[in-house]
Amino acid sequence: MTIEIDHPETKAELEAAFARYEAALVANDVAVLDELFLVSPSTIRYGATENLYGYNEIAAFRSGRSPAGLARRLARTVITTYGRDCGVASTLFYRDSAPGKVGRQSQTWVRTVAGWRVAAAHVSLIADPDGGGTGS
Amino acid sequence: MTIEIDHPETKAELEAAFARYEAALVANDVAVLDELFLVSPSTIRYGATENLYGYNEIAAFRSGRSPAGLARRLARTVITTYGRDCGVASTLFYRDSAPGKVGRQSQTWVRTVAGWRVAAAHVSLIADPDGGGTGS
Repeated sequence: MTIEIDHPETKAELEAAFARYEAALVANDVAVLDELFLVSPSTIRYGATENLYGYNEIAAFRSGRSPAGLARRLARTVITTYGRDCGVASTLFYRDSAPGKVGRQSQTWVRTVAGWRVAAAHVSLIADPDGGGTGS
Repeated sequence: MTIEIDHPETKAELEAAFARYEAALVANDVAVLDELFLVSPSTIRYGATENLYGYNEIAAFRSGRSPAGLARRLARTVITTYGRDCGVASTLFYRDSAPGKVGRQSQTWVRTVAGWRVAAAHVSLIADPDGGGTGS
């Protein structure tokens, strides 16, 4: 590898950014969610039912989203950094409103002078191949 | 930004790697698909119906996959590099076998001494919010 995987300080930074994002998501804190996405036309978010290209489409989606039912529990979260400026956060999630389904959230984060930002995200729901949806 | 977006040579390299992956995917060239994923326990692939953690689970999935019906057409493909060692490839795709559905494929690529490798991938299918599934 030419780049270091999981440099400790870098990984700790990204873990903190991810935790901040998750708290903002379940609280529907749109200001923080907007802050944490990279302001760029190349930023992409594939959501549960929508395909959003560019920061502006993502921000418009956030501002129009219902704040109801966003609570969720995470499982098998993996945060990995590649070098000092790039990392990936992957997690499964479960919602009481979607029994038998498992959500998957993938984010690619990059470091900017203002902090870590999501450059690409993909969220999808599928029938839980492990059944039950207990989050185990 | 502390990292350069779309450095031309880096972007060209990643575009070539992505094209090689796509050709291998539709041909079900398992050797090339295996080669292009990062050999690491932290490599993750969320697929259309499965959640794969670690290179070994991904390789096992590839070797067991039916080679039928993999042809697809891509739309709105965006490849963006961040610095010299990291990039994201996002694309929509359509298959004749899945009318009215749009696929989304997200890949995070990292540079290794052996070449570019996929460190994380997420593939999902949803009802096409734009309708038709024409790939337009």
